[in-house]
Amino acid sequence: MKIMVANPNSNKELTDVLMESARRDIRDSSVELIPFTNPLGSKHIDSVFGDYQSVWSFVREILKEIDEVKPDAVVLAGFGNFGMFALKEALSIPVIPIAEASQMIAPMLGHRYSVLTVFNQNIPYQEDLTRLFGIESRLASVRGIEMNTDIVETTDTTKASLEYTIDKLIHEDGAEVVVLGGARFAPYAQMLSDKFNIPVIDPVAVSVKLAILFVESGLSQSKIRKFNQPPQPLANYFVGKEGE
Amino acid sequence: MKIMVANPNSNKELTDVLMESARRDIRDSSVELIPFTNPLGSKHIDSVFGDYQSVWSFVREILKEIDEVKPDAVVLAGFGNFGMFALKEALSIPVIPIAEASQMIAPMLGHRYSVLTVFNQNIPYQEDLTRLFGIESRLASVRGIEMNTDIVETTDTTKASLEYTIDKLIHEDGAEVVVLGGARFAPYAQMLSDKFNIPVIDPVAVSVKLAILFVESGLSQSKIRKFNQPPQPLANYFVGKEGE
Amino acid sequence: MKIMVANPNSNKELTDVLMESARRDIRDSSVELIPFTNPLGSKHIDSVFGDYQSVWSFVREILKEIDEVKPDAVVLAGFGNFGMFALKEALSIPVIPIAEASQMIAPMLGHRYSVLTVFNQNIPYQEDLTRLFGIESRLASVRGIEMNTDIVETTDTTKASLEYTIDKLIHEDGAEVVVLGGARFAPYAQMLSDKFNIPVIDPVAVSVKLAILFVESGLSQSKIRKFNQPPQPLANYFVGKEGE
Amino acid sequence: MKIMVANPNSNKELTDVLMESARRDIRDSSVELIPFTNPLGSKHIDSVFGDYQSVWSFVREILKEIDEVKPDAVVLAGFGNFGMFALKEALSIPVIPIAEASQMIAPMLGHRYSVLTVFNQNIPYQEDLTRLFGIESRLASVRGIEMNTDIVETTDTTKASLEYTIDKLIHEDGAEVVVLGGARFAPYAQMLSDKFNIPVIDPVAVSVKLAILFVESGLSQSKIRKFNQPPQPLANYFVGKEGE
Amino acid sequence: MKIMVANPNSNKELTDVLMESARRDIRDSSVELIPFTNPLGSKHIDSVFGDYQSVWSFVREILKEIDEVKPDAVVLAGFGNFGMFALKEALSIPVIPIAEASQMIAPMLGHRYSVLTVFNQNIPYQEDLTRLFGIESRLASVRGIEMNTDIVETTDTTKASLEYTIDKLIHEDGAEVVVLGGARFAPYAQMLSDKFNIPVIDPVAVSVKLAILFVESGLSQSKIRKFNQPPQPLANYFVGKEGE
Amino acid sequence: MKIMVANPNSNKELTDVLMESARRDIRDSSVELIPFTNPLGSKHIDSVFGDYQSVWSFVREILKEIDEVKPDAVVLAGFGNFGMFALKEALSIPVIPIAEASQMIAPMLGHRYSVLTVFNQNIPYQEDLTRLFGIESRLASVRGIEMNTDIVETTDTTKASLEYTIDKLIHEDGAEVVVLGGARFAPYAQMLSDKFNIPVIDPVAVSVKLAILFVESGLSQSKIRKFNQPPQPLANYFVGKEGE
Repeated sequence: MKIMVANPNSNKELTDVLMESARRDIRDSSVELIPFTNPLGSKHIDSVFGDYQSVWSFVREILKEIDEVKPDAVVLAGFGNFGMFALKEALSIPVIPIAEASQMIAPMLGHRYSVLTVFNQNIPYQEDLTRLFGIESRLASVRGIEMNTDIVETTDTTKASLEYTIDKLIHEDGAEVVVLGGARFAPYAQMLSDKFNIPVIDPVAVSVKLAILFVESGLSQSKIRKFNQPPQPLANYFVGKEGE
Repeated sequence: MKIMVANPNSNKELTDVLMESARRDIRDSSVELIPFTNPLGSKHIDSVFGDYQSVWSFVREILKEIDEVKPDAVVLAGFGNFGMFALKEALSIPVIPIAEASQMIAPMLGHRYSVLTVFNQNIPYQEDLTRLFGIESRLASVRGIEMNTDIVETTDTTKASLEYTIDKLIHEDGAEVVVLGGARFAPYAQMLSDKFNIPVIDPVAVSVKLAILFVESGLSQSKIRKFNQPPQPLANYFVGKEGE
Repeated sequence: MKIMVANPNSNKELTDVLMESARRDIRDSSVELIPFTNPLGSKHIDSVFGDYQSVWSFVREILKEIDEVKPDAVVLAGFGNFGMFALKEALSIPVIPIAEASQMIAPMLGHRYSVLTVFNQNIPYQEDLTRLFGIESRLASVRGIEMNTDIVETTDTTKASLEYTIDKLIHEDGAEVVVLGGARFAPYAQMLSDKFNIPVIDPVAVSVKLAILFVESGLSQSKIRKFNQPPQPLANYFVGKEGE
Repeated sequence: MKIMVANPNSNKELTDVLMESARRDIRDSSVELIPFTNPLGSKHIDSVFGDYQSVWSFVREILKEIDEVKPDAVVLAGFGNFGMFALKEALSIPVIPIAEASQMIAPMLGHRYSVLTVFNQNIPYQEDLTRLFGIESRLASVRGIEMNTDIVETTDTTKASLEYTIDKLIHEDGAEVVVLGGARFAPYAQMLSDKFNIPVIDPVAVSVKLAILFVESGLSQSKIRKFNQPPQPLANYFVGKEGE
Repeated sequence: MKIMVANPNSNKELTDVLMESARRDIRDSSVELIPFTNPLGSKHIDSVFGDYQSVWSFVREILKEIDEVKPDAVVLAGFGNFGMFALKEALSIPVIPIAEASQMIAPMLGHRYSVLTVFNQNIPYQEDLTRLFGIESRLASVRGIEMNTDIVETTDTTKASLEYTIDKLIHEDGAEVVVLGGARFAPYAQMLSDKFNIPVIDPVAVSVKLAILFVESGLSQSKIRKFNQPPQPLANYFVGKEGE
Repeated sequence: MKIMVANPNSNKELTDVLMESARRDIRDSSVELIPFTNPLGSKHIDSVFGDYQSVWSFVREILKEIDEVKPDAVVLAGFGNFGMFALKEALSIPVIPIAEASQMIAPMLGHRYSVLTVFNQNIPYQEDLTRLFGIESRLASVRGIEMNTDIVETTDTTKASLEYTIDKLIHEDGAEVVVLGGARFAPYAQMLSDKFNIPVIDPVAVSVKLAILFVESGLSQSKIRKFNQPPQPLANYFVGKEGE
């Protein structure tokens, strides 16, 4: 079974971080994980503006890659929108956005969960996503830590910020479960889970396993209405084709 | 890895049906599936009344069995309540109720999903459960087919009823995905999926795979608040102990 | 008119406390209040686990008692679930769960109400119940005081805890009405109402009066769907009968 | 105990109908029911426009009457708004609007309830009220029968319309309980309940009994915020006083 | 085009304040703004009680004035209910209540908005209104400043209270936009917007412009159901006519 | 005042249709309407896939044009997402998406409104948008007519489809107001409004007027959180810059 793990950011270093999460605790040695990095676009997609400027090329390039590699499922490894419904429309193999998968799993583990995001500026964006998934009544809160997105390594400052914020999620907001809404938080998942004695979800790790579940079960997004194939041939939508 | 598949009904024939679903498409040969049938109680739990009369013994007996067998997770294989929160309180290994797991997976596959249940009388009960999970904004409808619960085999009448009802779920209620809310519907899942070209979820099959996901990921229900261990030693709660 | 006041806890001392509430301000001398204590089961049901271990016997025993005593209504005098829907299914006389009755009355008395519960651990459980009743938009908050459940008498510490918490309910959470979600809080109702100049609801007291209202009005739970009689003869559900 | 039953319509014939409902099944002979009819205003308040044109005098006149008669509670016997919050502000005795009381009682009797109203034109108005009470998730539907409001007597046409509409409420909308949202429907309550085997609520009848419950329990609307006394002396608000 | 700006309070000084807001930034010199002050009634409507005592005359008198002046739209310039639906029923020209218009505009300008009201006592009332408009998921909070309603002029104390409260709306409640729910706050709008760098909405100012939009577009409230003409001739509803 | 009317579709014929709506009933002759057509991209954006493939160039090109033309506001004249939040982030002048503006205006005109869309396949997409705006409790329904998007002219078939569908919106779904969720429906707005005697909203026409309102009022999207400027210089997000 081949699972493509797709990074919409044009950032190979970040893909490496994502792949570590992706590989974590996969027992089935026949599962092949295939990294994909958006070859064009922003290194850090940190806004809706950035999302639109990077996702168009991401979608085009990944479709080509999928045509060649023929994976069984795609994990969309950005904690946000990143064209998730565009991919679900274009593909008949399962598309698993990590923001969606992790937030459907979190409520099974406790009464309310919280999402930890990078910037406070992203809170409304994340709240919109949760509402789109329809699970907002189980969300305790979204909180940001003001983390420097260029630093990938584990640092003491980051650790302290994460601990400070999770303490508030639990004791002020009522969270029983935490979803790490930023790939760079993933290396701290186990440490934070141990310290606070709660489930801390690494979205990439659970999404890859959910992709395997979908493939094994023969399940993929329903194509009869919302995720129906776009009405025109896909190439028609590409800039420069039809609009000339 | 050991996954216990627990049937709250005191009905070994039904357990056999459930185990067929449980085993479906499990690739990892190191996963051991352990059936458990409630040794005492109703053959068919079909009401809240029946739920309370059977679950107490189910919980007691399964705790003993778990103590002995030491599974890594428990799939609660009745599409209803069946003491799901009681087990989540009592255990620290993951407890996966099939009604919850299937209804958190269904919304990832389409805009709205419907639940197929046995009796129309059960519709309010199922609606309450969905609201408890907090995913009611993604539920298209619950519909019952008036199926004879004694007949396990595939029959033409059942097939016709299922097809008739699913047609309504899709075209009148707007469902894009169907959850089979009755173990006896499971053998028809593939046929229905093919006929209507939509994902049809067999709750036991996806729940077992989700149990594997939880175990692999080291995730289990948060014990800090809702699913905290009951305040007294478990034996204290057993009738005849303290109340004498 | 006979109203049975049913204590699901196997605890006669607590029944005495409940009966004091039940009798409070009943003007109609022809109303006969009949206490019922679960003869088997936990002294303190303080978890979903405990609920399932005690309610099965509670339901069986109360059905026998009802058969004999023939009351006109049953007040289910535990502030929680305690098989409330099981009893509504099994009986055609009105079943009045105190958690439900008090939370349907509270919103008539102010914009938002709060529930005072015993342990903070119970907050998610109480929030689930309120959502089940569908009245969550009127709930200001649930807060726990960490009260020792063994002490029935009025004590200064308890009084101080109650006052401290109600002050927060009013000034931080916006409550205008308080529901005392624990039988042991009832003796303080009048004092707290006087001190804070708000309605403080003793659930048992209002539920008994609501039971009288239902009986006088000839109203009982609808039996056409949700609370329809269980499909099998009741005895079939009892452990040891069918499952052998 | 004195309960005032207040008709905001300037229509003594209608008050007589209301009083019949009010007196139904009152066991306590010490309860004195005092009718009050709005001495000025529209005979039939059938719109928000009518509500405002009649309620100002209704409120003024009833306050005078209350000052004299000194009732223990007021039942606001119009199935609508009719200044319900104005009265709750002005009075410290319990004010029980029949639309509110009946819709808080209905959900205790079944999964979903429906409101029967006079005109289809009133459906949005009734839906707004239910949302104001916060119980909209338990409402199955509001339906109107196009009843001639001048005819008070039982007639065959009315009977047929009621039966036709209730059949739809049950079988198309999923109602298990019906609230009769028009005083003129009350005489049919028992007949309809018998025919359809469901609880049919006469709002005036249950509201009077709820008023007794509140008085007995010493409960009245919280005066600390929403229903606080208006900031100015009441007389200041009367037209012609301050605005000159 | 003639827009009537209607003050339900019987208070010409306040009308002058409202007209300043109404005239602000109107570019189209052909728009004629016509002030209307309730000739009878309370100087300050500050409660539901006051609303009912003043609105009946307000509605009657404004209908006469409208008959004569023939405006193209009416701005209902009180931040509350003030018979808004009564006027929408009675008139076929657009009726624009400032509480409604400003709260439908605010969500277009940010993720969540807050309403600033005069008294804390009004918070539940304002929350009810927002729920009636159906936009409560976009409301961050309602907060009151305890402003003396007799003082119209800009004062340092008021300024300080406004600044103190808006700071909390932004930093504690998450507001990105503020609606000034009191006519007397309007003179501070620009200053507050500059200081906090957020949109601060003067409801009268935007409502007049929305009235122009409706008139230009030929849009007015739908008369087919909710805002249908009242069933009887309007004069019939006036006290003293029919109820004699 | 300059208002840019931006067509995300690369389709000048459609821009002409939009400009007709935009110009309708604009009284202020000093308002200059500036059409903008996406120079690159799909002729018909009819899916999320198409949205992402066209919006990136749309956003880039319109930013250049805005830099040059310096409009006071931008109307985003596609009834969908089309990067609406990306533009709100990037710009400090008001951005008015027609899907948002029309759905905030519709609820002021009636109890519930419906959206008419082109394809049934788009219904989930439109429902998601309405939920994003938070106004779903006022939405009666979304219905599609299966209109050929290549035919711009008024045709009898289209007229018949529109009439057939609006009849259902009113009589089956309870709509009192209709929003025309497709630019090609706009020429029928007046005819449909006359025929059904309800407000029929042409989203482009009301959005241009709302843009004027915002500019006159000095209001624009709040930049303090959700619509804050993207963290990096805008050019950094453009493909080929940073990701090389």
